[in-house]
Amino acid sequence: MGRIQTLNNSSRKEIIVEKAANLFKEKGYKAASMRDLAEVVGVEAASLYNHIKSKSELLHVICLDVANRFTNKIDEVEAEELSAKEKIEILLRFHIQEMLNNYEDVIVSDREWKHLSEPYLSNFRHQRKTYRKRFAAIIEEGIKKKEIKKIDASTAVLIMLHAVSGIESFHRSKQKISGKELEENMVTILINGLAK
Amino acid sequence: MGRIQTLNNSSRKEIIVEKAANLFKEKGYKAASMRDLAEVVGVEAASLYNHIKSKSELLHVICLDVANRFTNKIDEVEAEELSAKEKIEILLRFHIQEMLNNYEDVIVSDREWKHLSEPYLSNFRHQRKTYRKRFAAIIEEGIKKKEIKKIDASTAVLIMLHAVSGIESFHRSKQKISGKELEENMVTILINGLAK
Repeated sequence: MGRIQTLNNSSRKEIIVEKAANLFKEKGYKAASMRDLAEVVGVEAASLYNHIKSKSELLHVICLDVANRFTNKIDEVEAEELSAKEKIEILLRFHIQEMLNNYEDVIVSDREWKHLSEPYLSNFRHQRKTYRKRFAAIIEEGIKKKEIKKIDASTAVLIMLHAVSGIESFHRSKQKISGKELEENMVTILINGLAK
Repeated sequence: MGRIQTLNNSSRKEIIVEKAANLFKEKGYKAASMRDLAEVVGVEAASLYNHIKSKSELLHVICLDVANRFTNKIDEVEAEELSAKEKIEILLRFHIQEMLNNYEDVIVSDREWKHLSEPYLSNFRHQRKTYRKRFAAIIEEGIKKKEIKKIDASTAVLIMLHAVSGIESFHRSKQKISGKELEENMVTILINGLAK
């Protein structure tokens, strides 16, 4: 029953969402119950409903928050006066930092978004698709300007996003290198390649 | 009851394993039942047991077969007189081709190996760990010989393996590019980088 009792309502909701992300990551959205959540939050299941309507509300809060962060970032990047290569690097670093710092939310939104109910499902799917297209368009722009090799832009996006999702196993490993080193290594390999 | 009745026993077993890999990929190992498998194979559930002992046997056949293929490949690559960069490229292409041609087995072994029972679980885990170490050692060798940039070798392995696992979404997409093009794009980006 610890510290959650002493907080105001909006902080309580934040903690509930945070604990839900952790629970959904560990157990999977479908298998996780509101009873499990009450247990990790340290309250009675009934009192969760003072803050949130349903398990499904928790999933859409988590997923749409992640989608909005990426959409805001690409809005910001597109508006800047930078080379395509610089834009790609900023986005890549943002993906890496999100996986390092908010990885539970990112992993849940990546794995569990298909369980969203409407209208959140369509909203999320649309944001995700648009984001990838806009990322690919930045790469295409770089190819046109001869900053980037003549590669298939969608494949490049796919490689970057999946390489970054590998950070999940970095979290599980004994973390021989720091997050900052991991970021530098990933950027070097993906932007400049392994070969010397 | 179609064509499976006319085959000899070892071909029947092969078909059962193939259908099981497909089923485990679609439904997940835990959720898939022997009844589901009998249905997709087109036989009675009881007659599956003429060819295999249990659902768990199917999983270890799939996982250990994948692990053995990768182990054999790295044995072969290590024995060749090639630069580290060439060895890395051969392994990377092998991963890509496995994801293009045997992707159901590879995905199942990647996602479901934790459900293996002993002694298969320890065997698989050991092969997997050793494979990654040997791959990292080839990269280290390349760094020493100045063929490869000074990067963290384990991070490089992690990036390559996860980037390749992104081919799963390539299979689901409308496949605007061919497998061969995908392979060339991946090798270019990962070995030589996006930047021109």
